[in-house]
Parts: sequence; C-alpha cells; structure tokens
Amino acid sequence: MQKQLADFKLDEKVAVFALLSSLELRTTQQGKPYLVMTFTDRSGDIRGMKWEVTDNDLKDLQVGEVVFVEGVKQSYRDQEQLKVLSIRLTQAGEPSNPADFLQRAPKAQAAMETEVERLVLQITQANWQRIVRYLLKKYHQAFFTFPAAKANHHAFAGGLAYHSLSIVHMAQAVADQYDQVDRRLLYAASLLHDLGKVLELSGPVATHYTRAGNLIGHITLIDEQIVLAAQELKMDIYAEDLLLLRHTVLAHHGLLEYGSPVQPQIKEAEILHQLDQLDASMQAFDQALAQTEPGHFSSRQWALDRRSVYHPEMD
Amino acid sequence: MQKQLADFKLDEKVAVFALLSSLELRTTQQGKPYLVMTFTDRSGDIRGMKWEVTDNDLKDLQVGEVVFVEGVKQSYRDQEQLKVLSIRLTQAGEPSNPADFLQRAPKAQAAMETEVERLVLQITQANWQRIVRYLLKKYHQAFFTFPAAKANHHAFAGGLAYHSLSIVHMAQAVADQYDQVDRRLLYAASLLHDLGKVLELSGPVATHYTRAGNLIGHITLIDEQIVLAAQELKMDIYAEDLLLLRHTVLAHHGLLEYGSPVQPQIKEAEILHQLDQLDASMQAFDQALAQTEPGHFSSRQWALDRRSVYHPEMD
Amino acid sequence: MQKQLADFKLDEKVAVFALLSSLELRTTQQGKPYLVMTFTDRSGDIRGMKWEVTDNDLKDLQVGEVVFVEGVKQSYRDQEQLKVLSIRLTQAGEPSNPADFLQRAPKAQAAMETEVERLVLQITQANWQRIVRYLLKKYHQAFFTFPAAKANHHAFAGGLAYHSLSIVHMAQAVADQYDQVDRRLLYAASLLHDLGKVLELSGPVATHYTRAGNLIGHITLIDEQIVLAAQELKMDIYAEDLLLLRHTVLAHHGLLEYGSPVQPQIKEAEILHQLDQLDASMQAFDQALAQTEPGHFSSRQWALDRRSVYHPEMD
Amino acid sequence: MQKQLADFKLDEKVAVFALLSSLELRTTQQGKPYLVMTFTDRSGDIRGMKWEVTDNDLKDLQVGEVVFVEGVKQSYRDQEQLKVLSIRLTQAGEPSNPADFLQRAPKAQAAMETEVERLVLQITQANWQRIVRYLLKKYHQAFFTFPAAKANHHAFAGGLAYHSLSIVHMAQAVADQYDQVDRRLLYAASLLHDLGKVLELSGPVATHYTRAGNLIGHITLIDEQIVLAAQELKMDIYAEDLLLLRHTVLAHHGLLEYGSPVQPQIKEAEILHQLDQLDASMQAFDQALAQTEPGHFSSRQWALDRRSVYHPEMD
Amino acid sequence: MQKQLADFKLDEKVAVFALLSSLELRTTQQGKPYLVMTFTDRSGDIRGMKWEVTDNDLKDLQVGEVVFVEGVKQSYRDQEQLKVLSIRLTQAGEPSNPADFLQRAPKAQAAMETEVERLVLQITQANWQRIVRYLLKKYHQAFFTFPAAKANHHAFAGGLAYHSLSIVHMAQAVADQYDQVDRRLLYAASLLHDLGKVLELSGPVATHYTRAGNLIGHITLIDEQIVLAAQELKMDIYAEDLLLLRHTVLAHHGLLEYGSPVQPQIKEAEILHQLDQLDASMQAFDQALAQTEPGHFSSRQWALDRRSVYHPEMD
Amino acid sequence: MQKQLADFKLDEKVAVFALLSSLELRTTQQGKPYLVMTFTDRSGDIRGMKWEVTDNDLKDLQVGEVVFVEGVKQSYRDQEQLKVLSIRLTQAGEPSNPADFLQRAPKAQAAMETEVERLVLQITQANWQRIVRYLLKKYHQAFFTFPAAKANHHAFAGGLAYHSLSIVHMAQAVADQYDQVDRRLLYAASLLHDLGKVLELSGPVATHYTRAGNLIGHITLIDEQIVLAAQELKMDIYAEDLLLLRHTVLAHHGLLEYGSPVQPQIKEAEILHQLDQLDASMQAFDQALAQTEPGHFSSRQWALDRRSVYHPEMD
Repeated sequence: MQKQLADFKLDEKVAVFALLSSLELRTTQQGKPYLVMTFTDRSGDIRGMKWEVTDNDLKDLQVGEVVFVEGVKQSYRDQEQLKVLSIRLTQAGEPSNPADFLQRAPKAQAAMETEVERLVLQITQANWQRIVRYLLKKYHQAFFTFPAAKANHHAFAGGLAYHSLSIVHMAQAVADQYDQVDRRLLYAASLLHDLGKVLELSGPVATHYTRAGNLIGHITLIDEQIVLAAQELKMDIYAEDLLLLRHTVLAHHGLLEYGSPVQPQIKEAEILHQLDQLDASMQAFDQALAQTEPGHFSSRQWALDRRSVYHPEMD
Repeated sequence: MQKQLADFKLDEKVAVFALLSSLELRTTQQGKPYLVMTFTDRSGDIRGMKWEVTDNDLKDLQVGEVVFVEGVKQSYRDQEQLKVLSIRLTQAGEPSNPADFLQRAPKAQAAMETEVERLVLQITQANWQRIVRYLLKKYHQAFFTFPAAKANHHAFAGGLAYHSLSIVHMAQAVADQYDQVDRRLLYAASLLHDLGKVLELSGPVATHYTRAGNLIGHITLIDEQIVLAAQELKMDIYAEDLLLLRHTVLAHHGLLEYGSPVQPQIKEAEILHQLDQLDASMQAFDQALAQTEPGHFSSRQWALDRRSVYHPEMD
Repeated sequence: MQKQLADFKLDEKVAVFALLSSLELRTTQQGKPYLVMTFTDRSGDIRGMKWEVTDNDLKDLQVGEVVFVEGVKQSYRDQEQLKVLSIRLTQAGEPSNPADFLQRAPKAQAAMETEVERLVLQITQANWQRIVRYLLKKYHQAFFTFPAAKANHHAFAGGLAYHSLSIVHMAQAVADQYDQVDRRLLYAASLLHDLGKVLELSGPVATHYTRAGNLIGHITLIDEQIVLAAQELKMDIYAEDLLLLRHTVLAHHGLLEYGSPVQPQIKEAEILHQLDQLDASMQAFDQALAQTEPGHFSSRQWALDRRSVYHPEMD
Repeated sequence: MQKQLADFKLDEKVAVFALLSSLELRTTQQGKPYLVMTFTDRSGDIRGMKWEVTDNDLKDLQVGEVVFVEGVKQSYRDQEQLKVLSIRLTQAGEPSNPADFLQRAPKAQAAMETEVERLVLQITQANWQRIVRYLLKKYHQAFFTFPAAKANHHAFAGGLAYHSLSIVHMAQAVADQYDQVDRRLLYAASLLHDLGKVLELSGPVATHYTRAGNLIGHITLIDEQIVLAAQELKMDIYAEDLLLLRHTVLAHHGLLEYGSPVQPQIKEAEILHQLDQLDASMQAFDQALAQTEPGHFSSRQWALDRRSVYHPEMD
Repeated sequence: MQKQLADFKLDEKVAVFALLSSLELRTTQQGKPYLVMTFTDRSGDIRGMKWEVTDNDLKDLQVGEVVFVEGVKQSYRDQEQLKVLSIRLTQAGEPSNPADFLQRAPKAQAAMETEVERLVLQITQANWQRIVRYLLKKYHQAFFTFPAAKANHHAFAGGLAYHSLSIVHMAQAVADQYDQVDRRLLYAASLLHDLGKVLELSGPVATHYTRAGNLIGHITLIDEQIVLAAQELKMDIYAEDLLLLRHTVLAHHGLLEYGSPVQPQIKEAEILHQLDQLDASMQAFDQALAQTEPGHFSSRQWALDRRSVYHPEMD
Repeated sequence: MQKQLADFKLDEKVAVFALLSSLELRTTQQGKPYLVMTFTDRSGDIRGMKWEVTDNDLKDLQVGEVVFVEGVKQSYRDQEQLKVLSIRLTQAGEPSNPADFLQRAPKAQAAMETEVERLVLQITQANWQRIVRYLLKKYHQAFFTFPAAKANHHAFAGGLAYHSLSIVHMAQAVADQYDQVDRRLLYAASLLHDLGKVLELSGPVATHYTRAGNLIGHITLIDEQIVLAAQELKMDIYAEDLLLLRHTVLAHHGLLEYGSPVQPQIKEAEILHQLDQLDASMQAFDQALAQTEPGHFSSRQWALDRRSVYHPEMD
C-alpha cells in the first residue's frame, strides 16, 4: 500500500497524493513570495512551504483539490513540515476524490446510520421522534459527513455523527444511575444538539464558518430548524414537549458565557451539557497526548484552559 | 376626582377601589393566618396586610380583580403599607375593569400606534418592512399593552412599546453622528428587539414569566417568530438581509453572559445594545430617585450593580 | 406501622419518636426564651419550635438523642414546621437507637460492601490495590455510614459509599467510550476521592465540620492518608504509580478555586472530576424537584449557581 | 495634486514627502542592522523597512520631521509596508510643516471652535460655565489639536475636540428623552471629561504617554485642574455644584476597573459614561470595517473585546 | 470606678451614662412605634430597644448627646442588646462630653503627635516634607481624632493616626530588607495616604460618609489637597517629586477595582499598598477573634472575603 | 580578575568560561540547523546563537557543563545575545565546577545557616521545633542551595533559604505591631513554607519542574513531609499544634485560585501569605528596574499583572 504523509521520516524524500486543504500566498519581510499550504490524507495534516513559486502554482492550485506533491520532510519549531519542491494537480487515472483523503470517524458511516435508526425507535414520544426523523432526513448526508468542529475536537469527516453517538452511549449509563431522567428526551436532544453545525460550518473539506454560523450561531440555527419542522408537522410550538426539546438543545453549552441563551433547568439538559463537556475534554486530551512522549508533559493546551497534560509511562 | 392610593397620608383612613395584583395567605411563626396583598391603581402600588382573615376573604378574593378596600396607611421598614380592615369585590355599578387601574406609559396608545406606523414606512428595505409589519400585526394588542419587564424598568402597561420607541428616538441621533449606519435595519430591529416579551411575560396584570419565557427566553422567542414569519412570507432565511435582522435582535443584550447567543458584529447591533442598556439605566435611576429626598443618597440599587444614587439639591 | 414525620398533614396533631438532630435556645426580641429544634426520622427532617420552655427541657434534651415529641404540624414561609407542645427523652422499652432514625442510602450497606469488594479485585495494579484495601479497612465503618456532605448532595447515612459507587458505575461507561483510560486507576481514585470526609465531618448524626476539616480540608486529608499508608506499606511515594493516584484524588475538584491544589493533567483525573460534578448536579436537581410541583419552577437553588429548576408535567 | 501614501498600489514605486512618525534601529537575529519606521500623511500611516542603513540615516533622521522617501510598496502578513530605498530630510522649498501631514478631524478647527463657544453659552450655571471657560482657555490650542487617544479611537489631530462634541450631540437627544437631566451639567462635563489628555499625551505628533499620564492618569489630571481653577476663581470646592461637576468627570469610565475612582451616581454621569463608551465602539467598528471587504469578517479586534466584525454587502 | 456597658451581665439591671450614637424610630408590622438606638462608651457599643416610646423621647433625644439610660441586658440572635426602660439627657453636674465616651486608639494622642513630629524630620526631601507639614497642620485636629473607617478596621477615635503610624512601623522593616526603597517617600505617603478620610467621613461621633466622600472618594480628595498645597507653596505639580508622592498616595488601594485610579508603578507605592492591606486584615481578624471562643470558628467575615476565622486554644 | 559575561560591551569580542545552562537544536524555516543556548556566570545569563553547527557540538555539549565559548556580543529585540563562533568543553586545569558559575544569594550560605540555627531556638513550642529541625536536617543541602523559583523571583542558588529568611525578618516587625500573633508558629511556618520546592524543582542548575512538582505541587509536597515527619516523631497529626502548622503552610498562597487548598484562617497564616506576596512583588520590581533606565517605564511585567514599572530619576 502507498505511503501516507505520516509514514515519512524527517529528512526523507516525499512523493505523495494528498488533498490540498489550505493555500496562502505570502511574502517574506524582504518582499519575496512563497506558498504556505496544508496537505491532508487519512494519516493526518502537514504544513507545506514552497519557497519558489511558479506561474503554474498560482494558476492551477485550488483548495479542495487532490494534488501530487514532492519534497522533503523537515522539522520547524518542534513541528514537522514539508519543504515542497514541486506540486501539480492530479491527472486522469490518478486519485481525484477529496473524500478519499479525509480523516474519518472511527466508525463507518453505515454502522452509524444503523445505530441512529435504532435509537430513533427508542424515542417513543411521538412529537420528539417525528422532529428527529424530519431533521435527520433533511440533513442526512451532512449529519454523517460533517466534522463536529472547525478544529480541535472531532474535526474529522463524520465527526458530527460520531460525537452525537458518543454522548448517547454515556447518557445511557447516566440514565441508569438516576431517577426521573426521560431517556426519550435525552436521546432526541443528544442527536439534534449539534446539528446546527451543518449550517454553521461549510463542510468536511477546508472547513470554515459560514456567514450564518458567525452571525447566528449553531445553537440558535438548530432551534430555528426545530421550530420550522414543528410548524411543518402541525405541532404546537409552545406545548410542553416542544419547549422541553428546544430547552435541552438550547442549554447544552451550560453557561450563558459559552453561548447558551438559557442555563439547564431540567435534568436531561444538565446531563447533555455535562457529557458534551466531558467528550470535548477527552478529545482535547487525545490531541495533546498524541503530541507528547510517555513520561513527559505536553505544551499548554488552549482547549483545556491552558493546562499542560501528562502522558503516563506505566501500562 | 376620587383619591388614589398615593394620595393618602400616613395614619390616614383609606377607602378606595383598587386592583388586587397579588395575594398570599401566610401564617405567623406562632401559627396565626394573615393575608399579604398588593393593591394597584394609577398612582402606584402599595402592600396590604390583613391580620384577621375571614372566610369570605378566602372564598372571594382573586388576583386580577378590582376590590374595594378600607384600612389605615402605615409605615414599616421605611415603606408605606396598608393595614387592611375590610376588603370586598366590587359590585354592579362600581368600577370593575382592571385596565383602569394599571399604570400607563407616559404616551397614549393611539399616539404610539401612529408613531410606529410612521416609522414602519421609513423601513424602506422590503423584507425588513414586511417582517416588522407581519409581527406587529400578529402581536398588535400585546405590543401596545404589555409592560417591558416583570419589575424594574418600564414595568407599566404599554411599557414595551414606549421602551421600543425611546430606543428609536435616540437611535436617530446616533445615526446622524456616524457613517455607515443603516437606519432601516436599526429601526426594524429596535421595534422587534423586545417583542419576544409578549411570549415571555403573562400580560399587563400580575405579570409573571411564562413557561416558554423561562425555558426559552424572549431573545430566542422573537428570533423564532422572525423565522416563522419569513417562512410564511416566502423569504430566504439565510439571505443576508434576514441574517442581519436576526443578528441585530439576537445580539441586543451585548454580552453572552447577559443572554445574547452572539455578540454584536455590526454597528446597528452595537448601537441597539448600548441604547437598550442606557434606557435600562435611566429607568433604574428614576426608580431610585423617586424614593430618595434631594440632598440624599438612595439605598443600594440591585438594577445598578448595587450602586447608591444621589438626588441633587440644586435646580 | 407507625406514622413518620412526613406522614402527618398540616394542622394534624403529631405524636412520634424522632431523633433530635439540632437544638438551640433563642430569645425573642422582647426577651422571651424559646427552643428551635430539628427532628429527624427516615421520612426526613422537620423544624420544631417550642414557645414555652420548661426546666426539664433545658436539663434533659441533648442533640443526638431519641425523643418522644407531641405537637401540631403547621406551615411557616412555605415550609412545614412542628409547633411542639411537649417533648421528653425516650424511656426503657421505647426506641433509643439514633441509627434507626437516620435517612439511609438507597442501597443496603451489605450490598455496597459486596460491590466494593468486587471492585477492589478489578484494581489489578498491586500498589493501587494495596493502598485502597489498606485505607478502606482502616476507615471501613465510617466509609459505609458517613454522609457524603454536611448538607446538600448525599447528606444521608451511607451517602459517602453510595456516592463513590455512583461515580464508578458511570466511569465504566466512560472508559468503554474512550481509549487510553486506565480503569484500575479510575476505580481506585473513585473509591478514595472523598474518603477524607471521614476526617472532615463529625459523623452521620448532627453532622458538622471538624477542626481538621476546616483547617486542612478533605482533599489534603486523604492525600496525607495515602502517603502514610504508602510509607507503612514500604512503597516509594515519588514513583509514578503513587503520584498518579494522588494526582487523580487531589485534582478531583477540577479547578483551583474549588479547592484542588492541581488541575487534572491525566484523563482519569478529568473523568473523575467531571463525573463528581455531574453527580453533585443530579443530587441538587433531586432536592429541588422534591420541593416543586409538576408544571412549576423551583426557587433559586444555591447548589446550582442560583438556577431555578423546572419540574415537567408530562410522563 | 500629489499622490499620497494610500494612493500607491502594491509593487508600485513610491516617491513622497511624509512625516516620520516613528523610527527604530533594529538588528536581525544574525546581527545585521535595519530601520523600522512609520510614515504618515493625511491618507494614513504605513510601516517602512530599510534594510541597508547608511551613516546619514543614523545622523539625520528624527521622529517628527518631514522626509522625502523613495521605495516600493509591498505586502507583509496582510499589511502593506514600504521597502525604503532612500530617505532624506526635506530641503528649503520643500514641505516641512509636520501639521500638514497629520490626519485631521472630519470637522475644521474653526467650526469646532464656533460650536464650542455656542455650547458654553448654554451652560447657564455660573460656576460650571466659568470653570469650562477657564480651562478651555488655558488649554485652548491643545484641546483643538490633540488626538483623543494614542492609538485606536479618535487618534487623529483634533480628535479630542471632535470626540467631545460627538458626545454632546448625542447627549442632547438623550436629554430630550428623559426627565431630570441637567443639560448644563451634561454639556460642561462632556466638554471637560477628556481634557486631562492634553496632560496625559505628548501631543499630536508621535504621540506617547507622558510621565504624569502614566503615574496619575487623565481622569485625575483633569480633576486636579478643575480644583485649581475653582481655587483661582474663588469657588467653594465642596459646594454641591463643584462636587457634581467633578463627580461626573471622575465617573466617566463607568467602572472602577476601567479607571474611574467612583461609579456614576447621578444621571448625567451615567449618560456621559454610556455615550463615551458608544463613541469608542463606533470608532473601533470604523477601524475594523476599513480593513475588511464587504461580505467578510474582520480579524479579531482588541478594542472590541476580541470580537470579529462583519462588513455587510447590501446597501 | 463606674460600671461600663460591657461590664453588665445578661439579665442584669443596667443604669449608666452613655453616648447616644444612633437613633431610629421604627414601627412594628402591626403598626406600633419603638426606638432602636446604639449606646457607646469606652467599653464598646450595644444596641438598645425601647418598646414604649414617650413624647419626651421624641422631643429630647438626639444623636451625639450623652444620656442616662436604665434597662436590662438581654441576648437576641447571639448578640447582647439593652431593653431600655427609661432614658433621659444628662443634667448639670453629670457627664456631658461625648469625647469621654468614645473608644480610643491604643496610643495617646500626645504620644502619636510626638512620633509624627519625629517622623516628619526624617522626610529629608524638602517638597515632600513641606507638603506633609502643610497638610498635617491644616487637618491636625481631625488627623488625630478621626477614626480610620466608618466601621470595621480602626473605627475608633484616633484610629486614623494610629493606622498611619502602624504602616510606618512596618514600612521601616520592609525598607531595611530591600534595596532602592526611598524611605522619605514611603513615610510621607504613609502619613498622607488616608488623610482624605477627614473629608470623606463626618467625624468621630456617629460617623457617616459626607457628600464629598460619596461623590469623590477619599483617594481623590487627598490628591486634590496635595495639589492645592503645592500650588500654595509654589511647587511645580508636574515635577517628578510631586508626581511620585501623588502616585504613591493614589495607588495605595493597589487595584483599580478597589478604587485606585492607577496601579502601583514604584516600589514605595507597592509597599504602602501591601502594608495597608495587611493592616486591614489584622484588624478584621481582631474583630472576628473578639467574638469567638478559643477552639471555635467565627461566623463568616465580610471584611475577610467571607472567610471563617479560627481562634486557637493553645498558648 | 577575569571578565564576566555582563562585562563585555555590544560588538565586543567575547572569550569566557561559562556554565551551559540550556541547549536546543533548532532548524530555520528553510531547513538549516542552529543551536540556541543559555550561558550563565555570576554576572547573569545571556542567550547564545550558533549558526554553524559542528559534529563536535552535537556530540560534546551537555546542559550543566562548564564550557569555553568565543563569539561577539550583539543586540536582538532589545536584548543582548551572544553570536557564538566556537564552543568547547573545558579541559584539565580549567574551571569545571558548575557551582562556581551560579548566581548566589546576597548572603553567604554559612551566615544563613547560623541565622536559621538561631531562629530554630526561638521556636520554643516542642513539636514545631522538632518538625522544623527534622525537615531542615533531611533537606539541609537543598534548602541552602536551591533557588526559590524556576524563573522570576529568587531564581538564584541559595534563593530558597534567602527568601525564607526575608519573610522572617519582616514577620518580626509585624509581630511587634499586633497582638495575639504566635511568633513560634510564624517562624516555623516561614522556614518550612516553600521547602516543598526542593521536591518540586530539579535543583540549582538548569532548573525545571519535576514530575512530582507538576502532578502534586510544592504546597502539598511539604504538607506530606510534615505528616511523615510527625508520624516518625510519634506526634498526633490531628492535635491542634500540628493542624495549625500545616494550615499555615497550606494557606500561604492566600487564595484557592493561587493553589492553596485552604484560605488563611489564623493570623499567622494571613501574615505569612501577605509577606510572601510582598517579597514576590519586590523581586519582580527589582527585575523590571534592572532593565529600565532612570526616568523611563519598563515593558509590561507578567509577574506584576502586566503592570509597567517606573524607574525614578531623583535620588
């Protein structure tokens, strides 16, 4: 099988197909142009620098395309980067599907679809189930292919569905432990809580925030969709069941300063919030540990309030 | 003209018609029942205590009704209260319309309606005007009769419309002062920004928060209504004009910790937020000054971050 | 079966055996003495007021004793209280064991002991298992009978063990969901994390903070015990296994401002912290819901950052 | 008319007269000296780099002088800069007045002087008018030529007077809207509130903080001047009129953490504070929008609490 | 010697001369008038309640007068209070000087005057010494008789001078320990730093905040006096010596949020701030310990960020 | 005497023996390797850059060794650095003891030992004296040679003992000023409070945090040692004397958010905390002043909450 970006060693000559997931033309302080790029394949991301810029580079290269790149892997400020010697778009007969180069959720889309289908059946309250069905159908493809974030936690294709299912798995154990927890509401809200990200983010490749994402935010965006769905399905949006579902989704960031317009006022909202936070912490730990040798402490992690993380040595 | 609640002096005998705007049966620590009530007329509110509770009291009295009350005005902990000797519902031929006993906005409803109508014409962007028209028609009566708050600022009948118009008046001066301010957006958002309160609050009499008010909040409630209106009027809810209107309304509390899901990212949103805050401060000052003699400092005001306020002596 | 404190209705005559769990002699502002007491049985707590104080009352009554009390149940400021007419210590042949009047964990002590024993076997790292065994043996009786708090969450006999096991149950689901989580460490730390409370609190009856609890705090108190145990068992306290166990326990309040001297730097510490927080929230919700009718909002809850909680109506 | 700094395109050859408003000799990490400068004319500021430093450069150049500079306009990290090829002081017959190169307030000095004169007449309280007259006379030239800030809002010549008048304009609309606002006090304090900046800042060219500015701050500096003026004019500094004027000026930053030693305790102080804040926000928006294309979001703005700002596309 | 207020036991009959330091007429919730007073002598303060109010009481009594009071000492909510049976103004031949009833600083005024005189001589910088001499002469009597606070720390007659000298004593030890500390500046600023309190507070008896105290604050008030003194003494108020002295005084609260308009930027200002804070803490501990038995913890202390304080048992 | 690092001027040729206290191999963005080092002698630290890396450099150089280095002193971003031309380990007959190159406390070790010995005798409470003796003996060498911090305050050899003694000197003056301060406890805790740093830090050369330092922290580390010592010496660790000593040490950071698990609840703990803070501020001022010319303001200091510091001109 072909070598991937992460397989090359420092100072080794690289020649690979990869997805060009960012591209910027910059100038040195003395006035010389150069290219800063990100290359992506399923082994991860690497930054590339091209110090000699050709006319073809400027004409042909475009974010989101598959390219063939040659260069040398080097280290700069403790991070690997690729000194690019040549780069070109792929030709007929060579790989060209960006999706083949994206990192994927640990679980296959089909398996996640099956699990979601099974979960929906457990949402035995009629209105909640119909809303979930309606919206998961409306945004089916995006739900199973979008990342859950622009960067940081779950920033891989399929991450949105994977994250939502992780929450559900833990929610089951929490519901087992405490009284007066409505599993139907907890599952419905867990599946919908981050679905606004399909409107907030631009998609799985070269992900950025949309205008609606910046100006409205994913929490309000999904609330609006729930209300529109309810209208379409002839439900009373001020009946208790619809209020509880929207409340649980709206409150899932827990604190106003994290962007929720209301704080959790029912148990299901509190559980969803806390598990969402735990899942985010675990992803942040994984990222930090991946860059840290056993027996050492990581650099300070922005996503963990600037904490440094320890990678234990013992098994 | 008949004497009102505020007209009676300390220790004077009181006999008036008034609105019963709160009612609670309590027990002393030794076990004796008594009634705590609030009486309201256009001169203001006063607390009433009835130390001897009759069977009729328990059977007849109901919040929101007009009553005839007799008693003595007294002072307790620096606040006037009414020692109630007798109380009964009004009879045929006596006043019975609660609206006649509510404090009113300084401007008559008809005048405010005229002004709003004139303002809507100045919103010359088609979609914004249509949304404003649609929602002000849908909630016409409530917009012109609801208070703007449960307590504190603008807590009088018609306060919601009055507050919205105050913002517009100052917004005109601000728009005169700065470039690149879209008056159409600023007026549209000023008129709509607090309209969610007609869903958040129960109404002009004995005002309390509704279930939707607590679980969703007035900011999200009006955003949902804008989206439903746009759907009804066949607009694209993700086009820039609709996003800007929703953003301006959503951001009007300024900071996430005050309940806005997004911070102001355009000038109109920043202006609306700051004028809303200024208007709230002015109301809080008015309340504090009304209870403070010239040359003295008020007690600490919760609505002004526990500041004490000074009532100047000089003219 | 005999009626308990919670079984009596308002204005009903009460005659019960109960635990006297607090007792205070106060004077009215006019100078008259009276007694304020708390009575406890398995149905809960109730405040008692005795307005006529006898010499026997002053001579005989003592916190922690079982008494026979007669009076009338009344309501004061929305809370039930008992107007005490007479009170005396119990006599030969009447109930006298305080433990029979304490609220108990939902799980029997024997069942919890069995579960803990089984869990210890799953801590297959030798030093961690030996430390846990040593300390659970040293504080066996207290671990299974102490409450987990002076008030608020898990403030019932056996609450400490019950709380610790709740954490373990959810920790299993979390460990299933994420890679690189050492279950042995997570279980060991979960069992020990609040064990310092057996030194911080005075015991299951009339619980108060000890001098060591106030001056040192339960987090440092259990860390000291781990170090002393390790010394006794001839372990190296600066080896990685001992550092990880202490770190996980020390960091379980998550933030320095909540009393942890270090923030979680390993996944197990982060998980323990978050589940501890979730468990505390769930207890606070349960307390608030128990005092709130379906369809209503609770008063503001100190333990939930002054949030009001909603008790849903729907099933 | 001669081309100005902002008129040149990227990669275009530049030859202009400009004000040298900052100058620094630096060394590359390898030890080679170079010059970093700021050039200013009425079209704005641009950074200049000179990689070959001559003896004349070191001998002749001085901040605050007018220079003739030749070079090429380039882009570095998204910002335009000037690669300087040669630079020299201007000679007889060439422009040499720094004031001709400073950005100016949108309103001419004469017009602002007239307006201020008219406003002073509206301050019909004798002591307030005399204090304002005395201090505006004492610092006349500085008031009309100083910027209102070292950087950020109103950092142009004449900005101080322009900013003060902006506040007054809006204050009129606010005073129209609310009762019990003393316009005389509001205008007097608006004109004086930032006058301490003539002592805090060094002047219109190459503006920096003075020693008094750093150690005392502009709020206390103007308060001291009011007190000295009052002494000179034989007023009682502890009479109410003087206290109110000083209070309004002292409180204009609103919160202690923003440098006001007292919070606003009268309406006029609250209004001045809020309008000062609104004006600062509007300036910050203008700066951000000037650097952002329609349809795009700006970089995060330090002066707006790190908010990103949106530049709408629609007219 | 005559018994003082603190000498009487609970339930003992009291008959003493005392200073009436507060007086308020209140009404019970049922409408009956009563008097709440504070009585002061050198043994401390006690609250008095008079349940039967006579016409003479209302006509004669005035805060700040010496009275003869009879009654019974009682306990209410853990605090001693005096049930007043009769009260009258003192007559010819009886004590009448309020100063004889005030708590005094632990050091006699004469001794403090001598020490201050000696200290002034050590301020060998001419301008600093002249300013200190000028202001201590201007406010001589107030400096040596005012308390240092309305309540809490140093709230006794002479407390202002005593507090200032405490700071100087510790400042000497700090100056011994560190290089580059100018003792002349440190002593001058220590003597002046709280002198603004003679304008902020009303005096030693029935102390309250003045209008200037509330609207301007003692920090700015003393800065103004330094500037006026410098003007009078023909000094340059923008020369370094005057700036350093004002800076040290202005910065002595350390943080903007505590009311200093600038933070300490020189060592002397930092030292003064920290010692001022330490002295305040020590006073707060003394107050808490005085109300707490050895071996017990105090109630939460507002002046110590709501900390509870422990009174050790061991000697 | 031989020239030291600080003695060389800019652009002067350097040839000195020095301690190599840090060493890092980096790569330029274009891929060229270079060395970044820190050289230390008693005159201070300087950063060194070696742009041509030899095989010997990579093979021989090691942090903590004495080297002979030749190069040129230059300035980069306002800081001096050394352009290294050659570097080698020292040979037989040349200096080789790292301790000879470390900055030292202002007081000799022997003098500090004598003073500590004298102080211990003043701790006349038996258990406190025995604990102090035991731990100062156990960690004698480290206590007198470790720095008090990795960077910032007291980061010189012997700094730990020097810092502890500074606290004691000022504590004596504070104890003279206030009643009810137990000097024995204050001295014992002052000597022990930072002793955990001998476990938290790696030592006097190339100081870094240990694993125990990061995971447990120096405050808990010394508390553990006190408990182990008490166990060894057969003391009751829950008796008041041991609790007070541990409390004073544990609380010395003052606030939970600064890492103390409890806040100061006794006077001695409050004094230790405040003097520790004052000492840290003084060190931070010294560092800032050393880099700032008289009459100028320093850059913002991280250790002083980003304050800028002023270096006075006057003597």
